[in-house]
Amino acid sequence: MINDSLFTQVSSLGHEQVMFCYDEETGLRAIIAIHNTVLGPSLGGLRFWHYEREEDALFDVLRLSRGMTFKSSLAGLHLGGGKAVIIGDSRKIKTEALLRRFAKFVENLNGKYITAEDVGVDEHDMEYIFRETKHVAGLPLYMGGSGDPSPFTAYGVYLGMKAALKYQTGSESLENKKVIVQGAGKVGTYLIERLHKENAIIYVFDINEANLKHVVKEYKAIAVNEAEIYKLEADIYAPCALGGTVNPQTIPQLKVSLIAGGANNQLLDEIRDGKALQEKGIIYAPDFLINAGGVINVYTELEGYNEKKAYAKVERIYDTTLKVLKKAEEEKTTPQEAAIALATDRINQIAQIKKFI
Amino acid sequence: MINDSLFTQVSSLGHEQVMFCYDEETGLRAIIAIHNTVLGPSLGGLRFWHYEREEDALFDVLRLSRGMTFKSSLAGLHLGGGKAVIIGDSRKIKTEALLRRFAKFVENLNGKYITAEDVGVDEHDMEYIFRETKHVAGLPLYMGGSGDPSPFTAYGVYLGMKAALKYQTGSESLENKKVIVQGAGKVGTYLIERLHKENAIIYVFDINEANLKHVVKEYKAIAVNEAEIYKLEADIYAPCALGGTVNPQTIPQLKVSLIAGGANNQLLDEIRDGKALQEKGIIYAPDFLINAGGVINVYTELEGYNEKKAYAKVERIYDTTLKVLKKAEEEKTTPQEAAIALATDRINQIAQIKKFI
Repeated sequence: MINDSLFTQVSSLGHEQVMFCYDEETGLRAIIAIHNTVLGPSLGGLRFWHYEREEDALFDVLRLSRGMTFKSSLAGLHLGGGKAVIIGDSRKIKTEALLRRFAKFVENLNGKYITAEDVGVDEHDMEYIFRETKHVAGLPLYMGGSGDPSPFTAYGVYLGMKAALKYQTGSESLENKKVIVQGAGKVGTYLIERLHKENAIIYVFDINEANLKHVVKEYKAIAVNEAEIYKLEADIYAPCALGGTVNPQTIPQLKVSLIAGGANNQLLDEIRDGKALQEKGIIYAPDFLINAGGVINVYTELEGYNEKKAYAKVERIYDTTLKVLKKAEEEKTTPQEAAIALATDRINQIAQIKKFI
Repeated sequence: MINDSLFTQVSSLGHEQVMFCYDEETGLRAIIAIHNTVLGPSLGGLRFWHYEREEDALFDVLRLSRGMTFKSSLAGLHLGGGKAVIIGDSRKIKTEALLRRFAKFVENLNGKYITAEDVGVDEHDMEYIFRETKHVAGLPLYMGGSGDPSPFTAYGVYLGMKAALKYQTGSESLENKKVIVQGAGKVGTYLIERLHKENAIIYVFDINEANLKHVVKEYKAIAVNEAEIYKLEADIYAPCALGGTVNPQTIPQLKVSLIAGGANNQLLDEIRDGKALQEKGIIYAPDFLINAGGVINVYTELEGYNEKKAYAKVERIYDTTLKVLKKAEEEKTTPQEAAIALATDRINQIAQIKKFI
């Protein structure tokens, strides 16, 4: 039984629509959350994850879809926020049939939700999904899509980091800046490559040893262990793996003056932890602002893909980061809250216009 | 928070899709349940009801949409089962804006769900809904629709009753048969009119005094009070108002040999109460089989409305009722279970064919 607060939960985050999809034959259990479609169709990745409880899946999809609304709004895209999760262990239950069944549900939403890759879903999976619905973005290059979005995400993070540094120190130079990169996956590695070119001093941790060895060898990154990450004396902390690493346990340990990374939902609680950082004098470059490069690239695919155009759009992240940090200062709020306010302003303005169409 | 069993609940009834729709501005909180679309788009009414708890709304919409699947399958229609509920007191929160917002969610389902009138929703409401979506059936006559479905529902109930009588006694004649009609709303009244023409002895109860007076005056029905309904010595009990009136409290009181009426979900628990009736020697004509006249009429609208065609389709209910009662006898099961099996067989057969399309 569902209890009384599902709508309370949905409404507190402001979702338009949440759909539970089930298919007995394939074992599909999916939730598609459409947070906001004022700026355009909702777009967000499909995550395939073995949630312990359904409520965890619901919480995740509600939170992530809301994040997509803010991300696309701030990035100036004509997109709303959405997200989908499939519940289950992808290694055990992921089949072509299940993915195609999921895709049929997406197709039936008639373009109101556009799906894409996320954790637990790869290019081959997207091919299956594309067989059943055209409402897909972020297809591989060989299918005429925009390919791997990681370089674009990393580029945006890099620019956001430099803008925050400029705001903080008056100089955007990363030379000899100590940067802790948590996670040397695709985005982390592309970021490290850029940091290395600017002669930053890079500390890195990844649970995957191969990833770690690669960046140590190629970009002279210094491998550290997990426990050290939050304690290291450095300039910048760049979370590029898990969400929620900025929390009441880690904040007191941090000895950096800036946080700017590619991970989603870095603040465990965006209000509380945002304030705690501010009180400690740590500048936080909001994740959904500076990691928007991926969705910007994917969006460009919907308009007819052009790599240069995508990079040009990603470059706006620099100015928006400056704008957000100044706004937070002027309005005596946190960068996270200032970024949300800016994203929400745009949506509300367009909603007003739409009322008269 | 939603707990672990939402999918369990959805999956135990076999739903394909359950959608929660929310709109802050209009206060809309709606659930659209699509049970099965193997035979065609899901069709079922929109109910506007002040549920005490969200879980009651969910339970109702899941159960009713499943009932629509069986109803349309048994009636031979090319329709699946669906249903929608809007949560709230229709007298307080029903506005044009709210109904049109709901309709937009229906429109976005791209024809997978077709909505129609149900409790708390009237013709004028359907006009508003039709402004935003073409996926509407059962529109008023002046809008080119099929108009009031009640005479068709009543006709089907009447035919099902006669078929069950034929099966039980060898004669379908209602002359001098004592029939208890619970509810003199539209369907109850049209049924009473037909019973009166056949010289049945009619007992009737309705909480609405005007309804009661009308049938007493026009069709010589005998008014009884609510407490008497279940105790009266009679031949037939025809529930034409609330669901769940056949339950462990009422079954021991019943002194009839046949139950055939227009209400939905007459058995509070379809397995337990169906068996209890059988043990008592009471024949039960399944509600979703004999009250299908309404959806048959509405379906005809989708094909291009023709009243004669609609009545001709309703007439099949007579033979199907005989078939179901014989099947129950042969397979040593209850009529309810036999009817569900017949409905499910058709769906499974078509699902098999569809696999190769």
